[in-house]
Amino acid sequence: MPTPRAYSVKAYSASSAKSPLAATTISRREPGATDVKIDILYCGVCHSDLHFARNEWNFTQYPAVPGHEIIGRVAAVGPGVKKFKTGDLVGVGCMVDSCRTCPDCQSGLEQFCSGMVMTYGSTDKHLGGGTLGGYAQGIVVTEDFVLRIPENLSPAAVAPLLCAGITTYSPLRHWKVGAGHKVGIVGLGGLGHMGVKFARALGAHVVLFTTSPGKTADALRLGAHEVVISKDDAQMAAHAGSFDFILNTVSAALDLSPYANLLKRDGNLVLVGAPEKPLSVAAFPLLFRRRSVSGSLIGGLPETQEMLDFCGRQGITSDIEVIRMDQINEAYERMLKSDVKYRFVIDMASLK
Amino acid sequence: MPTPRAYSVKAYSASSAKSPLAATTISRREPGATDVKIDILYCGVCHSDLHFARNEWNFTQYPAVPGHEIIGRVAAVGPGVKKFKTGDLVGVGCMVDSCRTCPDCQSGLEQFCSGMVMTYGSTDKHLGGGTLGGYAQGIVVTEDFVLRIPENLSPAAVAPLLCAGITTYSPLRHWKVGAGHKVGIVGLGGLGHMGVKFARALGAHVVLFTTSPGKTADALRLGAHEVVISKDDAQMAAHAGSFDFILNTVSAALDLSPYANLLKRDGNLVLVGAPEKPLSVAAFPLLFRRRSVSGSLIGGLPETQEMLDFCGRQGITSDIEVIRMDQINEAYERMLKSDVKYRFVIDMASLK
Repeated sequence: MPTPRAYSVKAYSASSAKSPLAATTISRREPGATDVKIDILYCGVCHSDLHFARNEWNFTQYPAVPGHEIIGRVAAVGPGVKKFKTGDLVGVGCMVDSCRTCPDCQSGLEQFCSGMVMTYGSTDKHLGGGTLGGYAQGIVVTEDFVLRIPENLSPAAVAPLLCAGITTYSPLRHWKVGAGHKVGIVGLGGLGHMGVKFARALGAHVVLFTTSPGKTADALRLGAHEVVISKDDAQMAAHAGSFDFILNTVSAALDLSPYANLLKRDGNLVLVGAPEKPLSVAAFPLLFRRRSVSGSLIGGLPETQEMLDFCGRQGITSDIEVIRMDQINEAYERMLKSDVKYRFVIDMASLK
Repeated sequence: MPTPRAYSVKAYSASSAKSPLAATTISRREPGATDVKIDILYCGVCHSDLHFARNEWNFTQYPAVPGHEIIGRVAAVGPGVKKFKTGDLVGVGCMVDSCRTCPDCQSGLEQFCSGMVMTYGSTDKHLGGGTLGGYAQGIVVTEDFVLRIPENLSPAAVAPLLCAGITTYSPLRHWKVGAGHKVGIVGLGGLGHMGVKFARALGAHVVLFTTSPGKTADALRLGAHEVVISKDDAQMAAHAGSFDFILNTVSAALDLSPYANLLKRDGNLVLVGAPEKPLSVAAFPLLFRRRSVSGSLIGGLPETQEMLDFCGRQGITSDIEVIRMDQINEAYERMLKSDVKYRFVIDMASLK
């Protein structure tokens, strides 16, 4: 591989699974013909960032720079770039490239492409080593994986849409949730609070499932019509067989059967969290009303742009808490305790 | 309840969970206005019959008469019966009535109606006690739950279509299996051998999964294009991500993850067996290609008639071993050892 031209940016990285994140300097390639050079303004903090930094999925290369909810301004574009110009407000999500030719890519479902390049944790085809994410002052991404951000929204509060947003929007759209549907959202965290907002905006009757009665008021404020305390068997039983669709945003290995029992005939329970342990589900609730349990993974580029445009029209953003870059290790500890409403976002101006 | 007029027929029943089945006499109602009185010619032996006779689902009332794969000739019809006349070859499957008014019934999906009356094991609204199944010389059923049987097929070999047939045909049709699809059938028993025949007849490329290399030749004879020994990890891995649809006919609580991994994006793994223990499935295989695990339960009346007509046109029946009524207890023991190719059918002329 010829040594590509590169420039340096400040970043935060983990140097091992046991190390806290700390300030460092990393290389970014100089933009090629179809690349967009982005000055990062904000980066959301996803639970995946923590899994990756601590090598909990066993594929982390160090130094590891997490971050895949990136908002920035275009600093420069390659000569072949058609869709963006300097100064545009743009976003980068969980992917920075894919093969472009397989049936998944041709269908705009790049997240399923076997050649998909993750924003962090994949192999960097240009500079070697692992791809490095958005906890940094800048990033360079091919224009096809750069998203246009509506200027009417708060850029910091848009950042989580790039992962938490599309992860919940995509299954609601794929399974055609809309007016007249009764929709359940399980869990009120970074994903769940976006699920509530989207399901409500799509016209559904929205029920939030939580183990925490203390979340009731907030769930209603965010758009839920009803809140069910999932530990309360009587409350659960009252909803048996009544849901068109349930989105499970909880990453623990729940028994899915109680939720399967809440679905109507042909209803669908969709998982977007990925617990390490297998999930358990009884066959009878699936057989007796032809119900399904499915998975969904972020969303492709066209659907992510659709989601951002929808958020622009509807005025939807994430509820966030803005932090400085040097607060990231503390933020991880708070995230592990679900002590955030509902997403941390790093103000990259704090990285000096 | 006024005492309805009734007549007696010979039957075989279990008098307790521990008793072998034995000859007895039971009552059938005299046909009402819209009832069809049927002289039973053949009755298939389903694994559910054994579960029911031995109270393995904890709802059996005794005396228990199993049997829901019934073929017979119309002996008499009520004055309001429009679809059948004396002498017609007819069938009765797993259901003998439903509410007729709920959305499920209105959609021709009576199997999901909460007022559905099973052929055995439900409450008999006419005579009281439990409904009594097809291990008997005759039965009386409302005409809407009687099916027309193609005269060109062997009546004995048609009997298993009423449960094993529709149970496998319905999911293949619901999930639109056809030409150009790669379809897996897991297990080569009463259900699986029908799944192979139907998937082949619907135009799919059919792969049979079995733990028994000894079943290979028979699977190919029945219509499979390929056989995969599911215990062989290398054989399984060679098919990763390649199936549009997999039908799991095995009633054991398998780990579903190895089969989920064989599906393409948006592929569906459908369960038709109901193990008592919950099933296990890892979230990652579902998320990473938006796969689904679903259940399916027999089929409604319109689809059952469609299946029978399809079998008439295609010449499809079950592979059977005909037994005398007094061989039923021995047949149950052989069924438990999977020692049947592929369905026992009772010749009711042997019940004298």
